[in-house]
Amino acid sequence: MGDEGQGMTKPILRALAGEAVWPPPLWLMRQAGRYLPEYRAIRAEAGDFISLCINPKLAAEVTLQPIRRYGMDAAILFSDILMLPWALGYGLRFAEGEGPVLPPLRDAATLATLDSARVPGAIEPILETVRRVRVELDATRPGETALIGFAGAPFTVACYMVEGHGSKEFGAVRGMAYRDPALFGGLMDILTKATIVYLSAQIEAGAEVVMLFDSWAGVLPPLLFAAHVIEPARQIVAALRQRYPHVPVIGFPRLGGLSIADYARVTGVQGLGLDTTVDPALASALVPGPVALQGNLDPLAVEAGGPAMREATGKILAAMRGRPFVFNLGHGIVPSTPPENVAALVGLVRAA
Amino acid sequence: MGDEGQGMTKPILRALAGEAVWPPPLWLMRQAGRYLPEYRAIRAEAGDFISLCINPKLAAEVTLQPIRRYGMDAAILFSDILMLPWALGYGLRFAEGEGPVLPPLRDAATLATLDSARVPGAIEPILETVRRVRVELDATRPGETALIGFAGAPFTVACYMVEGHGSKEFGAVRGMAYRDPALFGGLMDILTKATIVYLSAQIEAGAEVVMLFDSWAGVLPPLLFAAHVIEPARQIVAALRQRYPHVPVIGFPRLGGLSIADYARVTGVQGLGLDTTVDPALASALVPGPVALQGNLDPLAVEAGGPAMREATGKILAAMRGRPFVFNLGHGIVPSTPPENVAALVGLVRAA
Repeated sequence: MGDEGQGMTKPILRALAGEAVWPPPLWLMRQAGRYLPEYRAIRAEAGDFISLCINPKLAAEVTLQPIRRYGMDAAILFSDILMLPWALGYGLRFAEGEGPVLPPLRDAATLATLDSARVPGAIEPILETVRRVRVELDATRPGETALIGFAGAPFTVACYMVEGHGSKEFGAVRGMAYRDPALFGGLMDILTKATIVYLSAQIEAGAEVVMLFDSWAGVLPPLLFAAHVIEPARQIVAALRQRYPHVPVIGFPRLGGLSIADYARVTGVQGLGLDTTVDPALASALVPGPVALQGNLDPLAVEAGGPAMREATGKILAAMRGRPFVFNLGHGIVPSTPPENVAALVGLVRAA
Repeated sequence: MGDEGQGMTKPILRALAGEAVWPPPLWLMRQAGRYLPEYRAIRAEAGDFISLCINPKLAAEVTLQPIRRYGMDAAILFSDILMLPWALGYGLRFAEGEGPVLPPLRDAATLATLDSARVPGAIEPILETVRRVRVELDATRPGETALIGFAGAPFTVACYMVEGHGSKEFGAVRGMAYRDPALFGGLMDILTKATIVYLSAQIEAGAEVVMLFDSWAGVLPPLLFAAHVIEPARQIVAALRQRYPHVPVIGFPRLGGLSIADYARVTGVQGLGLDTTVDPALASALVPGPVALQGNLDPLAVEAGGPAMREATGKILAAMRGRPFVFNLGHGIVPSTPPENVAALVGLVRAA
């Protein structure tokens, strides 16, 4: 750490500093996951999902599996966006086949149970995972693979807490934002502050990049998007950049549509994640460098492989050549993806 | 019909012809629906949902209920986007509390069971509803309320047929589009042609505007969006405009994000529906007149009512003043909406 010369700076860090690195660095959302047999073996050993997230030995191993297999340019901490509410003492469980389940947060009394003082202690096993992965990457992939830490963005975390589970539209969340802006604002404020604490701790533990996943940003109309997606991201980026000016932040306002250009400009992120629906050429025109774009191949094109994957990958590479860019998917790898399709994709991007 | 002078042309038809009518004409998606006690009474009488859709007397009554209550500028045929696969002889049922259920279409043999020759006969009760509503509107609201017919856009209908039910991501559909473009293209082709037949028949029966609902357009990456959202809409608009040059078409590529400007330009629609996530000022800049924009208040803002509804409505009206525009929601009214909030909304728009 710190002893590499400029020529040894990891490709993804160069791209996130505004350099048009080519072929582009790549990693894939959910690159550590159920499509890999070695992941499924560890998952079976770990017990439930939360136990895996707070087991530094196993979580570090899972984080590193796709690096060993594919030599990705980034490892992303294996964890879950809902580990922050868990760290705040909020009930969380993962029900088999139906995703996360939490007690729905609908009143000030429940909001008052969130305990920010619990966070530093609760996240310790997650930070230990970060430390272990960083040590391993420094030993085995110096100058190559960077470590990305992450958190769910406050709005997306609030979505699950208020609704109590996943949803297509998150109507209860929007309803609360309209009907009781003080209550919803209070929740957003607690989550924004806790996210700054959480990401700062990941950086201190060795994360070289952090990413903010706003998976449900796309359910919001423009007024609420500005207030609950852009503004908290702006606050988080400002706080992190003040403390850690050399650690880039990637924002991912999924399905942000026409609002992604505003998001990039106002928040001051160094990288902008594009979801699958975004036309890469249009995004490139709307969001000029030095902001690096990251994305956005459809995971279903990787699952299909073959000519469909080649065509879609080629379109993205052609649109992004000559600008700061990190190749990725526009959403996570789906579990039914053949691992050999991922290998073929890595080959396509490396040959760009 | 046909005997009104220019001054008597219905406001929504003037807006869809490119005129900046002010205050803007308004109607609301799902204005006939469960939030209305008079709807729930009919629904209980009708039996299952499909039975209501093919009962001309009750379907016409339900279509007219919000016109009597609020004096909307348009009535929209009460029906469902999946009545077209139903008319093609494809199994459809509405399971209580879980939405539509269909046999998943995954192979050429199943595709071959679709019977386009069944459509004209099967849709007859729906056309009878259109005739009855038109007669009633001509008698009671001459020069005021227009009748909108509609269909699900081929991609959205294909989503339900391939997946077999609703979904967040419609992965099976995208997977088929990538892996078996011939099979998926065959389905899209049948649906596109049947949609032209279906909408033409609605126009012959008295629909003065038709709307194409592409509710799941937003799950597609740009290449598939161009092929399966924009291109079928272009074909449908071209065929209808050739036969019925005075009947405007409203396209609604929901969650189309950055691609909605392309959609408007390439398809040649007279009206473009905006979903809740679109910034109205940005859309107004991207899609110039004479195309009329339609939208896009968040239905949850109507459910909340009060200052939140006033603020969001005011923003939309301010952005749309001076251009062809039809006030609407960005998605359907939610069942928990108090009917008096809808009345208040109508008052706000009428006073613009």
